[in-house]
Amino acid sequence: MQFQPELDSELEEPLYRQLSAYFARLIESGKLATGERLPATRELAGQLGLNRTTVSAAYELLETEGLITGHVGRGSFVAARRIAQGPDWERLLARPAWQASWASAAPISFSASRPPEDLFPIEDFRKSVAEVLASGRLEAMLQLGPPGGYEPLRQYLLEEARQEGSLGAEDDLLITNGCQQALDLLRRVLVRTGTRVAIEDPVYPGLKNVLREGGAELVGFQDVARTAGAAILMLTPNFQNPTGLTMPLESRELALRTARDQRMVLVENDIYSRLRYEGEAQPAIKQMAPGAGTVLLRSFSKISFPGLRLGWVIGPRPLIAAMRETKQLTDLHSDQFSQAVMLRFAESGRLAAHQARAIAAGQERLQVALASVARWLPAGSRWTRPQGGLNLWVTLPDGLDSGTLLARAQREGVAYLPGNLFAVERPHTSSLRLSFGGVAPEQIARGIEILGQVFEDERKTRQWAEETPMPAMV
Amino acid sequence: MQFQPELDSELEEPLYRQLSAYFARLIESGKLATGERLPATRELAGQLGLNRTTVSAAYELLETEGLITGHVGRGSFVAARRIAQGPDWERLLARPAWQASWASAAPISFSASRPPEDLFPIEDFRKSVAEVLASGRLEAMLQLGPPGGYEPLRQYLLEEARQEGSLGAEDDLLITNGCQQALDLLRRVLVRTGTRVAIEDPVYPGLKNVLREGGAELVGFQDVARTAGAAILMLTPNFQNPTGLTMPLESRELALRTARDQRMVLVENDIYSRLRYEGEAQPAIKQMAPGAGTVLLRSFSKISFPGLRLGWVIGPRPLIAAMRETKQLTDLHSDQFSQAVMLRFAESGRLAAHQARAIAAGQERLQVALASVARWLPAGSRWTRPQGGLNLWVTLPDGLDSGTLLARAQREGVAYLPGNLFAVERPHTSSLRLSFGGVAPEQIARGIEILGQVFEDERKTRQWAEETPMPAMV
Repeated sequence: MQFQPELDSELEEPLYRQLSAYFARLIESGKLATGERLPATRELAGQLGLNRTTVSAAYELLETEGLITGHVGRGSFVAARRIAQGPDWERLLARPAWQASWASAAPISFSASRPPEDLFPIEDFRKSVAEVLASGRLEAMLQLGPPGGYEPLRQYLLEEARQEGSLGAEDDLLITNGCQQALDLLRRVLVRTGTRVAIEDPVYPGLKNVLREGGAELVGFQDVARTAGAAILMLTPNFQNPTGLTMPLESRELALRTARDQRMVLVENDIYSRLRYEGEAQPAIKQMAPGAGTVLLRSFSKISFPGLRLGWVIGPRPLIAAMRETKQLTDLHSDQFSQAVMLRFAESGRLAAHQARAIAAGQERLQVALASVARWLPAGSRWTRPQGGLNLWVTLPDGLDSGTLLARAQREGVAYLPGNLFAVERPHTSSLRLSFGGVAPEQIARGIEILGQVFEDERKTRQWAEETPMPAMV
Repeated sequence: MQFQPELDSELEEPLYRQLSAYFARLIESGKLATGERLPATRELAGQLGLNRTTVSAAYELLETEGLITGHVGRGSFVAARRIAQGPDWERLLARPAWQASWASAAPISFSASRPPEDLFPIEDFRKSVAEVLASGRLEAMLQLGPPGGYEPLRQYLLEEARQEGSLGAEDDLLITNGCQQALDLLRRVLVRTGTRVAIEDPVYPGLKNVLREGGAELVGFQDVARTAGAAILMLTPNFQNPTGLTMPLESRELALRTARDQRMVLVENDIYSRLRYEGEAQPAIKQMAPGAGTVLLRSFSKISFPGLRLGWVIGPRPLIAAMRETKQLTDLHSDQFSQAVMLRFAESGRLAAHQARAIAAGQERLQVALASVARWLPAGSRWTRPQGGLNLWVTLPDGLDSGTLLARAQREGVAYLPGNLFAVERPHTSSLRLSFGGVAPEQIARGIEILGQVFEDERKTRQWAEETPMPAMV
């Protein structure tokens, strides 16, 4: 191979670097293959009319970059794929399997618990942004801010909490990047290896995974007896994810009492409560006893714009102070411009107006979902009857496995999340979550019809296999 | 005390809850003090014309909430401060001291390494927002997005990296909430208890604290010999925080070679490089060998709007994949609306225009800062001579302690960060960081003049004390 680098001694970049870059391009593009020998430095220096030290310096740099390897007396050779010489990522990044992501896509997807974007009040959002832009406080919003959150939004949320009776006298409030960050910060300040945490089973994977990453020992919470020895009890009393169920008032009181007696931290994830479509409103546990040290998580994500990532947490001052310090380590603070826009959206009454529309839409979707599962799912299927929220929990009959059936459902154009993703102690392999909230009503009906066919086919196949005697093996 | 609750049996809220809320308010407001006895249930029921079970239920709820304690046969008493009965926060939240925050305020504050907000191009920001609002892609931005970042911005940054030669063939890119989150995610995927990390000494507290939270063993990096056994080497080659210094090209090459030889992960924090005021530009280490596995951190915070919290990280695919999964656990993804606005701000050329103005302003401020320290600091003081960035590192003579002097400086109206906050292995008690970038030139001059007087006073007092013989103790 003839080497003809375009070298220019007039450039600021020294010749040896120009030469090394020339070879690097040849190697990266594959024109010089692994194992090929580079010309000896003396030889190349002669060919190109360069000083031999220039060629040596270029080779040395290529070696540093791992592109070539030098063998004394034998010359320099193009190295094997460089990545193998860098850090040993496989060893460095070894992680338990629970960190696998759980996305599953299809034309009709019931897999994300999110509000429908076609209902987003875009004009009201635009107005809110325009009002913030006109406010003349932009410099402060765009500058580095305090870790606790954009103070006007924080004050607005504090006042709202005061009015609804969810702010204890010893409480403070921290703004987070959605509820997920509140969960993450809680685990960072409260969970050490072996810390026992009682959580619902099934439960949202983002909750159990973040706790497991912190080394928590998870206990499925069925009744308060299971909380013995737990330092933390985490509940979603309103429209739980994934079941959609609501906790009765008496169970809330019992949980509160148990937390108090055992001095457990009671964390109440309450991000769905404003999406009630029917039945009587239940108070948050926090509202039942604002001073009892309960930690309340709220978010704008389910009731407005999840893309802005805004939530908040209310709890005792020492806890909020520790979370705020950790928030500073994590990302300094949340985006202030979006906080200002969200404040405007809320205090202008646009959030409340949107919420009314979201409730009407959710109600319709829930009804379509319930009617469709009743009509299309195989006999023996069971499902929850949520009074609000975005999720429905279905359990299939005859040991049908929702995990193995997912691939078939996806081939038919429908996705959901299989139950095993939500498992804490029980396997939930026959269950699945249908997040109906973000799907249009006609798609909900069509999607569940398709799922019903997929599940029914499998059920029949199994039945046939069970009922048909196997031929003798010959 | 006469109890006159306003109870209304027409309300949805049961009477026992109304009654318990009445007592809760009396106790929380202090009108019923700790230790006071509540009327017997029979007695109160008679007074208020209630069923006795209603009063009992109210008392039971108050007990659940920890507001009163019942003693059989003696009655119910207002409990001692309730916080004592909740979770034991002091034990639960026990944290090492390194998590203390490091804010220090004063009328003239050199304590935050941030750009000046009076230079923010507010009109250009407004235009960028308006263009995003008009773009018709709002629904997708406001909906839940992918953990890797808002894809159009991610593609823009990937292309920029390709063009400047900082994207290796095996690399990927993740958008983070500023550089701080990139550091936090790196430590979450790479650092376990005892992982050895070599970092500069002195170094930015947000870096060392996040590493320490993860259990890292920190080694002050003075030369490559100190890196033996380290899994990670973290450097800020351009305008380091706090020193403001630039790493010579040869040292960068040596660091690269050492990282390669020892298979260390080399993390390059490069958030200041675009703020060069003088001298020749140096390539990022990542640009010197894009395929060598180096991890590059960048941010919009120092060159535009820190309040939006936007940064990004470029590195080998397996690493970025692990960080992306962890990002999902942490906060799902970064705010998409601000990402869209920042993309518009950058691709419209407004960011580049602002950068030119930021460089001119920074240059002036650096010169004022250097002239002022030369003029006002006590004889024997030393300081760095940065060619860019936002920070200057000063070391005082005669063992003056910047930590103890801070309170006096603040009383005189000037704040800075004392050197011990930046300490890894060496104490740096005589040093301090002056973040001049965000301070107006006349304030820089005035602030350093005041500091000079405070430090000089202390020096003279000490000298006097040393030179004056102590009288005999009688």
